[in-house]
Amino acid sequence: MNPITMKAQIDPLLLAALREDISNEDVSTNAVIREETPGEVELLAKQDGVIAGLDVFARVFTLLDERTEVTFLCKDGDAVRSGQLLGRVRGDIRVLLSGERVALNLLQRMSGIATCAREMAAALQGTNTRLLDTRKTTPGLRILEKYAVRVGGGYNHRFNLSDGILLKDNHIAAAGGVREAVRLAREYAPFLQKVEVEVETLEMVDEAVAAGADVIMLDNMSVEDMREAVRRIAGRAQTECSGNVTREKLQALADIGVDYISSGALTHSAPILDISMKHLRRIPA
Amino acid sequence: MNPITMKAQIDPLLLAALREDISNEDVSTNAVIREETPGEVELLAKQDGVIAGLDVFARVFTLLDERTEVTFLCKDGDAVRSGQLLGRVRGDIRVLLSGERVALNLLQRMSGIATCAREMAAALQGTNTRLLDTRKTTPGLRILEKYAVRVGGGYNHRFNLSDGILLKDNHIAAAGGVREAVRLAREYAPFLQKVEVEVETLEMVDEAVAAGADVIMLDNMSVEDMREAVRRIAGRAQTECSGNVTREKLQALADIGVDYISSGALTHSAPILDISMKHLRRIPA
Amino acid sequence: MNPITMKAQIDPLLLAALREDISNEDVSTNAVIREETPGEVELLAKQDGVIAGLDVFARVFTLLDERTEVTFLCKDGDAVRSGQLLGRVRGDIRVLLSGERVALNLLQRMSGIATCAREMAAALQGTNTRLLDTRKTTPGLRILEKYAVRVGGGYNHRFNLSDGILLKDNHIAAAGGVREAVRLAREYAPFLQKVEVEVETLEMVDEAVAAGADVIMLDNMSVEDMREAVRRIAGRAQTECSGNVTREKLQALADIGVDYISSGALTHSAPILDISMKHLRRIPA
Amino acid sequence: MNPITMKAQIDPLLLAALREDISNEDVSTNAVIREETPGEVELLAKQDGVIAGLDVFARVFTLLDERTEVTFLCKDGDAVRSGQLLGRVRGDIRVLLSGERVALNLLQRMSGIATCAREMAAALQGTNTRLLDTRKTTPGLRILEKYAVRVGGGYNHRFNLSDGILLKDNHIAAAGGVREAVRLAREYAPFLQKVEVEVETLEMVDEAVAAGADVIMLDNMSVEDMREAVRRIAGRAQTECSGNVTREKLQALADIGVDYISSGALTHSAPILDISMKHLRRIPA
Amino acid sequence: MNPITMKAQIDPLLLAALREDISNEDVSTNAVIREETPGEVELLAKQDGVIAGLDVFARVFTLLDERTEVTFLCKDGDAVRSGQLLGRVRGDIRVLLSGERVALNLLQRMSGIATCAREMAAALQGTNTRLLDTRKTTPGLRILEKYAVRVGGGYNHRFNLSDGILLKDNHIAAAGGVREAVRLAREYAPFLQKVEVEVETLEMVDEAVAAGADVIMLDNMSVEDMREAVRRIAGRAQTECSGNVTREKLQALADIGVDYISSGALTHSAPILDISMKHLRRIPA
Amino acid sequence: MNPITMKAQIDPLLLAALREDISNEDVSTNAVIREETPGEVELLAKQDGVIAGLDVFARVFTLLDERTEVTFLCKDGDAVRSGQLLGRVRGDIRVLLSGERVALNLLQRMSGIATCAREMAAALQGTNTRLLDTRKTTPGLRILEKYAVRVGGGYNHRFNLSDGILLKDNHIAAAGGVREAVRLAREYAPFLQKVEVEVETLEMVDEAVAAGADVIMLDNMSVEDMREAVRRIAGRAQTECSGNVTREKLQALADIGVDYISSGALTHSAPILDISMKHLRRIPA
Repeated sequence: MNPITMKAQIDPLLLAALREDISNEDVSTNAVIREETPGEVELLAKQDGVIAGLDVFARVFTLLDERTEVTFLCKDGDAVRSGQLLGRVRGDIRVLLSGERVALNLLQRMSGIATCAREMAAALQGTNTRLLDTRKTTPGLRILEKYAVRVGGGYNHRFNLSDGILLKDNHIAAAGGVREAVRLAREYAPFLQKVEVEVETLEMVDEAVAAGADVIMLDNMSVEDMREAVRRIAGRAQTECSGNVTREKLQALADIGVDYISSGALTHSAPILDISMKHLRRIPA
Repeated sequence: MNPITMKAQIDPLLLAALREDISNEDVSTNAVIREETPGEVELLAKQDGVIAGLDVFARVFTLLDERTEVTFLCKDGDAVRSGQLLGRVRGDIRVLLSGERVALNLLQRMSGIATCAREMAAALQGTNTRLLDTRKTTPGLRILEKYAVRVGGGYNHRFNLSDGILLKDNHIAAAGGVREAVRLAREYAPFLQKVEVEVETLEMVDEAVAAGADVIMLDNMSVEDMREAVRRIAGRAQTECSGNVTREKLQALADIGVDYISSGALTHSAPILDISMKHLRRIPA
Repeated sequence: MNPITMKAQIDPLLLAALREDISNEDVSTNAVIREETPGEVELLAKQDGVIAGLDVFARVFTLLDERTEVTFLCKDGDAVRSGQLLGRVRGDIRVLLSGERVALNLLQRMSGIATCAREMAAALQGTNTRLLDTRKTTPGLRILEKYAVRVGGGYNHRFNLSDGILLKDNHIAAAGGVREAVRLAREYAPFLQKVEVEVETLEMVDEAVAAGADVIMLDNMSVEDMREAVRRIAGRAQTECSGNVTREKLQALADIGVDYISSGALTHSAPILDISMKHLRRIPA
Repeated sequence: MNPITMKAQIDPLLLAALREDISNEDVSTNAVIREETPGEVELLAKQDGVIAGLDVFARVFTLLDERTEVTFLCKDGDAVRSGQLLGRVRGDIRVLLSGERVALNLLQRMSGIATCAREMAAALQGTNTRLLDTRKTTPGLRILEKYAVRVGGGYNHRFNLSDGILLKDNHIAAAGGVREAVRLAREYAPFLQKVEVEVETLEMVDEAVAAGADVIMLDNMSVEDMREAVRRIAGRAQTECSGNVTREKLQALADIGVDYISSGALTHSAPILDISMKHLRRIPA
Repeated sequence: MNPITMKAQIDPLLLAALREDISNEDVSTNAVIREETPGEVELLAKQDGVIAGLDVFARVFTLLDERTEVTFLCKDGDAVRSGQLLGRVRGDIRVLLSGERVALNLLQRMSGIATCAREMAAALQGTNTRLLDTRKTTPGLRILEKYAVRVGGGYNHRFNLSDGILLKDNHIAAAGGVREAVRLAREYAPFLQKVEVEVETLEMVDEAVAAGADVIMLDNMSVEDMREAVRRIAGRAQTECSGNVTREKLQALADIGVDYISSGALTHSAPILDISMKHLRRIPA
Repeated sequence: MNPITMKAQIDPLLLAALREDISNEDVSTNAVIREETPGEVELLAKQDGVIAGLDVFARVFTLLDERTEVTFLCKDGDAVRSGQLLGRVRGDIRVLLSGERVALNLLQRMSGIATCAREMAAALQGTNTRLLDTRKTTPGLRILEKYAVRVGGGYNHRFNLSDGILLKDNHIAAAGGVREAVRLAREYAPFLQKVEVEVETLEMVDEAVAAGADVIMLDNMSVEDMREAVRRIAGRAQTECSGNVTREKLQALADIGVDYISSGALTHSAPILDISMKHLRRIPA
């Protein structure tokens, strides 16, 4: 994760997360460790998967105490194995214990998404089709989750409603048709934004091409219709396939020739990757 | 969800989520709908499950426009079926479209957790053992996720590091033993807090009882050892069983007689419950 | 301005502006008016120009007291004349006086920008060239200033560094050439974003076309070179002309045939439009 | 700018400005520069004028990365010439590119105000009359803009409605006359605040003197009346002249003998001073 | 308290106070009252004193639920007697119970200050000397505490370091003498600010008068010296007496003839006024 | 104070306090000291008492300038004597002067509470009864005030309404009795929270014991009844005595044998401990 986003966007998020988890103090830790006590702890994978979010993990501890040293034996995007030593955190034991849960909650979640993305992207290997995420992310964590998708080999759709046009059925109905919707969008939107249109029938595909849509999203269409749609579009617009895409369905979709297949499950339903901090030990000051 | 928490804690969270999703405006919607346009949309379940978060869902829309009317045909905790009409939202179509994603992202996530909790709690039915959550929640959403656990039939462990004592291996090591750790915790902690101690052997169980722990957490022990631990404790402390509890393992654990079984997966890996807003239509002003 | 942006983005901005202007209280007003006192005041143009920001102006007063009534005799985008009555504000005189400066500071600034945009856009009338803004806006007020540009007849370039790609000389140098820069951008960016490339020579124009840039910005080129560039591009990319564009230069640029001409002065140097609140009078309660 | 104001007031403002310009990341820069890359860039004046805001400019970069080195060849208040090298910024090229716009937007605006203030103050040279600013500043930037006025040779009127009394026509009417308004203000206001009264006629001047006003603002009076007013006041109160003061009118007003002449245009309509960052080059790590 | 300060400054303070007291929910109340339950409670004085902060008290409840009705039988500044019924709060019992502590903590503290101010001001009755507060207030509550001082009959010194000049020994030493310090302050400060100088000897008094100080603070001088100081100043500056002023010392100081006597104890050491909410009862919905 | 709480909770509080005291700049200091000027100042006790809050005091200065060096000659909890040198602050004189008031306001208040707690706790020496605080703290400062109580030898009751159950008369009435209230609380509350019940009669004491309350608060009962209550409870619950406990009453209560005596006055009415910063002197750079 680049340092500017880390500083401007992630630091406040981490401080808020720490305040959520420590509304006044870590009573357990402070009860038994009343002075600064140097120590070191290991970061261990407990499942196979893809790691993502190491910078975020480290930042939790350096935010609490800038002297904390975090060293990693892997980097974002690496495939890790259960039991693998991923890194070490060295500093005041109170910092290690009090920051542990927030740091792990984020690292596990991001790694879970990266792992899921890697698996889904693998199903598309050898094709020109790319895996895409959606806006079905956890409120508050979108930057982190979309980063994790990229780490896993996926690509990002728009970040929010302000930085990309996607005209869905309701927008098209409100505008009175695909052509008019595209025209209104081009007139209104910041000029660097592409216009994507969601279609459900081949007729709408033709309309969207005629309207000059930059991207056409084939929503809940049959495999046959999607294949025909790609044929008709013939490169005049990019194509995206959407709608409850499971890993199983991916294989079937891979040879249709769409440019992108998007999956909400990537971010809304990926289980975490189990990672833990273990073997805390005191070290000489 | 009670109105005080909603006002003091959830409103700021929802506004932040809306700003994440709309950094300046919903370009697609505002391009095609340039004036206030009354409409109504349906809220539909697309999977079977347990609903949780209806107040939060509704609040997204009333925060954006206090005149929006949200009516529900079910209430938090209800089991819903795929296809079931859950409610309706009526107001300015721009509000309905611009708030949709944030509202659904939260409702789906909360309902996914409630559904998972309901299923796990069912495995404990007929026993005196209760299902418990952990602090393995999504950073920023802990209040909502712990609420969803309760809706599903689970119980809440502590909310954060400030409102409950849990002395783990590292705390015990730092204190120099279970007895000393409990003594330090009682001396230091706000006096209304119970003291829970994590143990891994039967020897530690005995120590914890002798030290007067209020709650003893049996961590990663065999079923036989846990059964023996419960026998030895003999009601002198509450008992909690922890450690990668799956739905399958629950059944085996249910008859050991512990008071609580805690599961991190409840909040960190529950898939969402699929719910959507459909059938938007204009209505006369 | 649409109500969702107003609620989520502008309300916090207005409250911060009010706190900047009233760090504890409006001493002058509160010294002489110690009780709620109903009154009405007129909003008057003191220069000819284009009005923009009426919703924002009104919102300052309704934020301070939701019972305040603001009525307008014109709407955003209207040309107004010096001396023209634009509207009335009715409510507690303390609210009218304490909110006056913040409300006017914003309305005057936004109307100044709209007036400037209207004048510059007029120079392009009858052509297919559109006037564009830049990111040279006042820190904190970008949403308002870009809105004012649209009200005046201009169009918006990207809102920020996250929602549009513009590859400048430094980016191209870092990538090792136009082609490689475009490739890296397409690979990295959210897929709905167009890629714009800044060029300074005709050679670079050719490179940009070959690289498949969506938009080519002709930066500080001679009128002749720009004309040739447009000819070479031949519709294969959109074109933008940039670089200290004054109203005088606009006329010369208008017949080159570029799609957009951008101007930073629109937002960074437009003088305000003079507007004032006058004729305050008490009214019966 | 003193370091305490910088830390307590300006840092949060700069972080908010950076978040406005980078809602998740600088896509263009991060696409082509994926690792830390040391570089240096020059800060160049592109117009003649007075520089103001160098600390603020520098702080943008050190906030993003504390290791960034910013060195200046001039200081706030210096007259600079078009083409003059003002300083250098050295650090991670991603930081230099991502912070550029926010840093320049502020430096240009502040320098524009300082330049305007210097020119207007020059017209008063050799007199005892001082140039004063107003509250007609950009919402959110008042501290910076008032600082720039001082850099240019002007003086500050009150910062906000809480730290100075200015009784205008509406306040006087509400109080029932100048004498009563002054009495109420003295009774109510924090006792270190002076009381200024706005007058429009010579009769009101006499009243204000009799009421013991500390400062009398002559609002929209003729030059002759102002001269007479100053004569009558005879040093018993300070005097301020106000009302659409242009640079041209300043000369005429300079020999009336008022203590202060205030100008809103200083802050609300000063064009920026053109300054840019150029000649970025990589440097050895 | 005027509504503008209430809205812009106090609302955020109250919400923060509520979040401090309810980090997720009021467990006790929500455990036993699970649905909206209308009720009414009485506000009762439990000591004699002066009431201050009724608006603030009421606002806590209407912030939590705008439908809450708060009615008062007294107003700020009233002397109340132990046992006196001060008002009633009617609304959802959960709101009444959950808001109680924050509302009372503020009302009691503000009333304690008003009571203390009333008593000290009484010692000055019949003189021209006024009681003044200081900046020795509770961090975060200055607006409320200075308001309470006024309610009790005291007057406000400056609100903070930005809205008034007070040149203390260290400032004078840094400037190289009283005369130079005053000159530098006049040159630097916003021109509506008076300049106050702290002196400790009669020689410094003479210097301060000669330097044209607006206010002279006599710090820790003997009663005789202060009397002589007032004689020498002879109305050419206002005078303030400062330094651990107790109620006992007030009487001795009252006839010296200084304009102001300031007391830090007013805000930093006033005990609260005991007030409670009692007799909660359900009412028909 | 532990560093994690300091970083996550106290830093934002200190920055807010500094902004309250310096809304734009410290005019007095900046007028006379225009450049960085190294200096040193002493921290002196002006009363006998117990010191608390040294870390907080120091943090004010290092937040403003991380190079400031603060050294202490005592530590939190030490009894100090009037005139005693407590420490030294060395750094830019502008930082020393501008941060002084906020730093002292907090240190004095915290030390006042610690002093009061020490005195009250002394009255309980030799007994098994502990002194307890309440939620009657200053809004915004609860963490600091409860810390000061501990420094003085007291113990903390719950921090807020979310981390402890206290069933008062109104809760009991709403539930329909002590037994039902305790049952509802156990069912609803996070399971690590103890349940405390407030009782006013011996009958209620019996009920509370029977209901299994963890803690029984004896509220406003006679000394005889409290003695009898303790006898009846016989260790089956912890006991707390509450209700306007003064230092005088403490002695009488000390031999009743309750576990805790709580006092609101500790935090709501403790006078400050007088401490000052003196003898500022320049030092060589």
